[in-house]
Amino acid sequence: MDKTYTIAIDAMGGDNAPEEIVKGALLARDNYKSLQLNLYGDKGRILEIIGQSSQERITVINTTETIEMGDEPVRAVRKKKDSSMVVAANAVKDGQADALFSAGNTGALLASGIFIVGRINGIERPGLLTVLPSVDDAKRPWVFMDVGANAEVKPSYLYQFAVIGDFYATHILKRSKPEIRLLNNGAEEDKGDKIHIAAHQLLKKAKQLNFTGNIESRELLNGHADVVVADGFSGNAALKAIEGTALTMFTGLKKVLSTGNWQTKIGALLVKPALKEFAGVLDYNNAGGAVIAGLKAPVVKTHGSAKARAVSNTIGQIQEILISGLVPDITKYVHEHVDQFKVSVEEK
Amino acid sequence: MDKTYTIAIDAMGGDNAPEEIVKGALLARDNYKSLQLNLYGDKGRILEIIGQSSQERITVINTTETIEMGDEPVRAVRKKKDSSMVVAANAVKDGQADALFSAGNTGALLASGIFIVGRINGIERPGLLTVLPSVDDAKRPWVFMDVGANAEVKPSYLYQFAVIGDFYATHILKRSKPEIRLLNNGAEEDKGDKIHIAAHQLLKKAKQLNFTGNIESRELLNGHADVVVADGFSGNAALKAIEGTALTMFTGLKKVLSTGNWQTKIGALLVKPALKEFAGVLDYNNAGGAVIAGLKAPVVKTHGSAKARAVSNTIGQIQEILISGLVPDITKYVHEHVDQFKVSVEEK
Repeated sequence: MDKTYTIAIDAMGGDNAPEEIVKGALLARDNYKSLQLNLYGDKGRILEIIGQSSQERITVINTTETIEMGDEPVRAVRKKKDSSMVVAANAVKDGQADALFSAGNTGALLASGIFIVGRINGIERPGLLTVLPSVDDAKRPWVFMDVGANAEVKPSYLYQFAVIGDFYATHILKRSKPEIRLLNNGAEEDKGDKIHIAAHQLLKKAKQLNFTGNIESRELLNGHADVVVADGFSGNAALKAIEGTALTMFTGLKKVLSTGNWQTKIGALLVKPALKEFAGVLDYNNAGGAVIAGLKAPVVKTHGSAKARAVSNTIGQIQEILISGLVPDITKYVHEHVDQFKVSVEEK
Repeated sequence: MDKTYTIAIDAMGGDNAPEEIVKGALLARDNYKSLQLNLYGDKGRILEIIGQSSQERITVINTTETIEMGDEPVRAVRKKKDSSMVVAANAVKDGQADALFSAGNTGALLASGIFIVGRINGIERPGLLTVLPSVDDAKRPWVFMDVGANAEVKPSYLYQFAVIGDFYATHILKRSKPEIRLLNNGAEEDKGDKIHIAAHQLLKKAKQLNFTGNIESRELLNGHADVVVADGFSGNAALKAIEGTALTMFTGLKKVLSTGNWQTKIGALLVKPALKEFAGVLDYNNAGGAVIAGLKAPVVKTHGSAKARAVSNTIGQIQEILISGLVPDITKYVHEHVDQFKVSVEEK
């Protein structure tokens, strides 16, 4: 922890920017003593939010444009050259920062990652990697990739997501021989479309991976895997269905308990602390952000609606990624096994 | 309700067959007075289960083989010619029965439906159609299709699922101008892979459909659509993620409430009735089965673990489908609009 890492922060991205982003950065500065945080955005507003707080290990860099949530991603990254996101991404590319944080437009961050920060040589497509909790006894978190970057995939992409996920589970979640599964519409190896059938075979042959077969989305929260590999389309569908169902159920539950008869209302008061703890397991503010994995540096997106605490937690996650040496280790591995990657590509 | 309909029942399919299937059929016979139920399976065992109960409107047809849950579907349907499922499907084909019920192997039922009962002329691929609840105020059920029959689709299949779903929502859920949405990984019309982008355009152009755009799986339970059209791969992923999350949360909730301190335990007793009612909204035993829609007759699958009550409810759902004239009305529509279907196919 002696080394100081610098994180480039897009202070203007997200529904609560720049207020919550700046407050989150200040919180992170206090929580993580070896981080230097560079904030990109409207300098006047950012300094106003910082106010009387210390500017220790905080640098503000003025930018004049902002990529909005509704902007067409690729075009926005090309045109808005002085946007907080693009300038921050260029800082990573130029070695002025070690990682990039944003709560802004996901597609634009993906484009900034691919076109500015750049892919690791040998990785065909970066993917969105997120960590979800399991709701079994161990509450053991697990890696889910891709959850939305690639609506269309080839078997080789899925294989590469597995390699990246394996490193993430080893380095960040501290698992040894992480159990890897492929999200599919059945347990048998001939399930799914051509792409998933071929990917299953690629993963089965990869002796360095502890691939234990397909998983159906019904089992995702039950702690059956350390890494779940998915195409970005169905991975996104499964992730959002989980989030939506959990949220809808908590909302419904709250309503049922608050609008019931006196017996229900008294009961609701009594169970409230236990329910709150249970809800915490599925609270995304406790988790970190989604990593655009497969890039030359960590690029991490947190929820657009993130508040200061979620921003700080995500910055902490980025620090962990940097300390663990995740990106250099993946890069080295892919470089040393580039033939294997080529084989996998040809077999698709 | 004067007309008597005959339903062919695969009495040997499902985890609890034949006991729960036969008991469910007896229950349905009592509940639905105009149904004739033909049970296909091991006659000795079935008669033993019927015991002293009345055999009014129940006929038992002996078969000597059973398609198991683990059987390879297409092969099983081809080889096991005297299986309860195949003989029952042939009875529908030959006009001895109006519809087919099974709790057995889904793939085999799909194959029986396509190869024995047959597709409606003009429908390229039947799909699995299910009805899910919404957890908003109205608890308004909605149609979800395809939830697993077609891992690979063409835009024209998705268009045809929308037409079928529109008829189902109109005839069975009694909606006028059902709101139709396409499951996709974003709201904008250029979201998704090539197939979903093309399907969106086909649906947008179909003036007879009330297509209101894409829906993300996060919103599925919130009552935003009467019909959600999906490819079978991501539809399956979303459906199972919803089921899995709901089940995992109820299990987790039960555990939290039963293992807490005395305060939690007393509260749990008080809120129990309200929670039970809430859980009922998402209980699949209250819902019907999954319809293999696009066939010349209703073929309906209920959960493999279905008990008598779920079996009876599903048989009731089949009666509703028969009375509503769903299949003849779809057949007539497709016949009259066959040019439109051809156009949609060519545009893909």
